[in-house]
Amino acid sequence: MRISELSAAADVPVATIKFYLREGLLPAGEAVARTRSEYGEIHLERLRLIRALTGVGGLGIAAVRRVLRAIDEPGTDRLDVLATAQDALPPVVDRAASAPRAREWVTARGWMLDDDSPLLDELETAWAACGAAGIGVDAARLSSYADAVESIAEVDVRAVPADAVPAVRQVVLGTVLVDPLLAVLRRMAQQDRSVRQATRD
Amino acid sequence: MRISELSAAADVPVATIKFYLREGLLPAGEAVARTRSEYGEIHLERLRLIRALTGVGGLGIAAVRRVLRAIDEPGTDRLDVLATAQDALPPVVDRAASAPRAREWVTARGWMLDDDSPLLDELETAWAACGAAGIGVDAARLSSYADAVESIAEVDVRAVPADAVPAVRQVVLGTVLVDPLLAVLRRMAQQDRSVRQATRD
Repeated sequence: MRISELSAAADVPVATIKFYLREGLLPAGEAVARTRSEYGEIHLERLRLIRALTGVGGLGIAAVRRVLRAIDEPGTDRLDVLATAQDALPPVVDRAASAPRAREWVTARGWMLDDDSPLLDELETAWAACGAAGIGVDAARLSSYADAVESIAEVDVRAVPADAVPAVRQVVLGTVLVDPLLAVLRRMAQQDRSVRQATRD
Repeated sequence: MRISELSAAADVPVATIKFYLREGLLPAGEAVARTRSEYGEIHLERLRLIRALTGVGGLGIAAVRRVLRAIDEPGTDRLDVLATAQDALPPVVDRAASAPRAREWVTARGWMLDDDSPLLDELETAWAACGAAGIGVDAARLSSYADAVESIAEVDVRAVPADAVPAVRQVVLGTVLVDPLLAVLRRMAQQDRSVRQATRD
């Protein structure tokens, strides 16, 4: 299809497609004339993926590029799939310079994490923000959340295919695109629980 | 304390504090001289809260203003606390124009939601993005996630105090600031599960 048809099919302006082409996020079409390229299903799919990542995923262009590179050229060592995938993701929050409280909590929890995992510094930052807001997220409440999050991670890990290439794809996209899905479900479940509690009272 | 001392205590530049004052996010200090105002603990606390919301919470200034207004002048009808709070929050994702798939799934799930809840349109968008990325989030996997998210919402709802004013505060801040905390915990739990699985194999 022509670029105008690709634009219509993906509901993305031609100028935006040209920007993605220039930025190397979208592979070039097949040149069929001096001023015309032909695009196919892979371009349409890639375009939809970029829109999902920039829209729902909330990623900037640099983060999208890193994610797509991880998907297109993943490491092939099965054990490194998760590390490869998580390295491609932008941090959830700024990283604290040190993470004494997060480290202590994770150790008590018994989670098997690398000692120098940047996630510890992210947990420190996110937890400190809850502290600054005075919303009572102590170690016990964090553990209650962690119990539920372990079930989420079980679902995540079960969904990862055995082969390395689709596995990296699943982990990267599943992490960044399911986060907002979970946030919406959380607000829904809060409403449901709240209505049930009010009618029970 | 002077504005320079407030700046040092909160680790926020004086120019930023002046911006928050102009924008009405921070209440004015007490004028003690023609060119000097005195600031206190409430300013320091409010400043820390604004930083948590703009940093970890990822909110823009307009969203922060709406959140702070909801906290400062909440409705007092207990049943409306959650609605008041959720209305003050920015949408997680853009809202779809219609939500046939989300509506069907929520109905099957039995969640008690308003028929015209904007969360349905947000779920439709977030779910469609997973579809565009081809990561296999079908209704069954959504339900597995929902099981875990219900446990999270139980923790959320249990943490809400009985009085309306602190209740709105807890729901608003707890929703926006715990989302990133959960996202970090999810990545940690994925690593933990993945390592355990690899050593079990």
